[in-house]
Amino acid sequence: MERVNQLILARVGSDVMLIPEIAKHLINSGGKRLRPMLTLATSALCAYQGDGDMKLAAAVEFMHTATLLHDDVVDGSEMRRGKLAARMLWGNEASVLVGDFLLGQAFKMMVEVGSLQALDVLSTAAAVIAEGEVMQLAAAKNTETTEDEYLAVIRGKTAALFAAACEVGPIIAGRAKAEQTACRSYGANLGIAFQLIDDALDYGGLSANLGKKVGDDFREGKITLPVVLSFRRGSEDERLFWKRTLEKSEASDADLEQAIAIMRKHRAIEDTVERARHYGAMAKDALALFQDSPMKRAMIEAVDFCIARSH
Amino acid sequence: MERVNQLILARVGSDVMLIPEIAKHLINSGGKRLRPMLTLATSALCAYQGDGDMKLAAAVEFMHTATLLHDDVVDGSEMRRGKLAARMLWGNEASVLVGDFLLGQAFKMMVEVGSLQALDVLSTAAAVIAEGEVMQLAAAKNTETTEDEYLAVIRGKTAALFAAACEVGPIIAGRAKAEQTACRSYGANLGIAFQLIDDALDYGGLSANLGKKVGDDFREGKITLPVVLSFRRGSEDERLFWKRTLEKSEASDADLEQAIAIMRKHRAIEDTVERARHYGAMAKDALALFQDSPMKRAMIEAVDFCIARSH
Repeated sequence: MERVNQLILARVGSDVMLIPEIAKHLINSGGKRLRPMLTLATSALCAYQGDGDMKLAAAVEFMHTATLLHDDVVDGSEMRRGKLAARMLWGNEASVLVGDFLLGQAFKMMVEVGSLQALDVLSTAAAVIAEGEVMQLAAAKNTETTEDEYLAVIRGKTAALFAAACEVGPIIAGRAKAEQTACRSYGANLGIAFQLIDDALDYGGLSANLGKKVGDDFREGKITLPVVLSFRRGSEDERLFWKRTLEKSEASDADLEQAIAIMRKHRAIEDTVERARHYGAMAKDALALFQDSPMKRAMIEAVDFCIARSH
Repeated sequence: MERVNQLILARVGSDVMLIPEIAKHLINSGGKRLRPMLTLATSALCAYQGDGDMKLAAAVEFMHTATLLHDDVVDGSEMRRGKLAARMLWGNEASVLVGDFLLGQAFKMMVEVGSLQALDVLSTAAAVIAEGEVMQLAAAKNTETTEDEYLAVIRGKTAALFAAACEVGPIIAGRAKAEQTACRSYGANLGIAFQLIDDALDYGGLSANLGKKVGDDFREGKITLPVVLSFRRGSEDERLFWKRTLEKSEASDADLEQAIAIMRKHRAIEDTVERARHYGAMAKDALALFQDSPMKRAMIEAVDFCIARSH
């Protein structure tokens, strides 16, 4: 990962100073680098020899960073990872364009690796991610969203890149289709689990002790699984509450407390974590065809770690 | 081109209805399809056999359409090609995301063609275009922009895609480096000439009779070559006029008339067209190493046609 980080910083360079400035703001802001780590992990799992994995890992992180820049513009977000969002510092305009630049650089790096199959997987992911975001936009603030519809959204916006990041490992290692599919499945299911835990954490997760970083989704009127479950299980009054706070964006701080109370009553957060466990289990089983190895064990632990964040 | 148009409409499909809706709005809105035509032209010039040229042509048009969607968001434009801009109908959010989707689809089509060299050229262009746009953003509303700085901006935002669209023809036809460079140079110079004529047309071009579609750049405070030349050649009073109208965006309709009068006085529009002729001449000369053929003659005529728009 250290070498991937160096590659990321090297490839974000441009004579147009605004580009490295914005990109570094986001890249250095304490992201977990989960997606590029997955590319390195599945490459190692498949005994890949070479340095293509690092370039693909950096490309995956660039794709992710581009998505974050565009997402913050689309959502009108003011904060990102506890810092001011890039759009608050440099404007929406620069955020859109620097995102485009990073996407272009990502494709350049993929081309350098020279695997058309990896390029296919990652360019398909790029289209699917954008499709998922448009779907989310169209479903935005609709409290009647079903769990299936919500899953379709996060399959696009989160799981697609996790899946692609994992699939390119066996591809560049020249492994058989079955191993590519296994890694892809591991990534897709881990991605869904990861997103669901994120959703739960935004309402405090399973912890009784609410941190200060709770409620962003609520204030932005985002429909996530804890809301979907609470809305479906709720009374008529509660449904009016969700419509007022989320659809009409009239949420106050007191409303957030009430939202969490309603969720606890319906076990919506617990069940969101349960759903995440289900996808986590699928991710682990997907790796069954690989022989035991330290990397395989680390990848399985990564799933447990992802779920354990909810506490 | 008919088959490219069919391919474009087929590839814009998505289960997420908003995507084809927005994309078709823009794709059907009477764009000239100049860039994909260039890919078909240089492929034919190099006697390419196959259907990769159509996919690359469609990909080039998708890249262009994505850029337009993002540009309108960045510039806050209300109109595009005489119709309401997509962002006015569906919002900035959808415009950003559908642009991202089209970029993803563009790369998928390029991957299908399977030429890593063509992928390299087009992904580099994608990064350079975004870089040019960021540069323009940083230089925005600076009336002291030099002609060289302005050229660097349009080399990025316009010429890069023209150049790439032309270069991929000889590449997929398997032609030698010299022919790739020749086609690239034709495209880059044609792109600069095309942009300069567009700049001149926004102030009425060489025609005494002003159409109704004049003044968009002026009202948006865009610094283009007619402004750069007028500012440098102008008096102190005139410079204050440009600063007030463009840097502070305080332009009225009467100001537009005065702007055009100042430009005529300094021959700024005529000289912008002269500069375009210069780049047009370079574009034609770049084709010298190709034998005479109907396609070569058509490509040379295209340059003349582009310049003749100024009348």
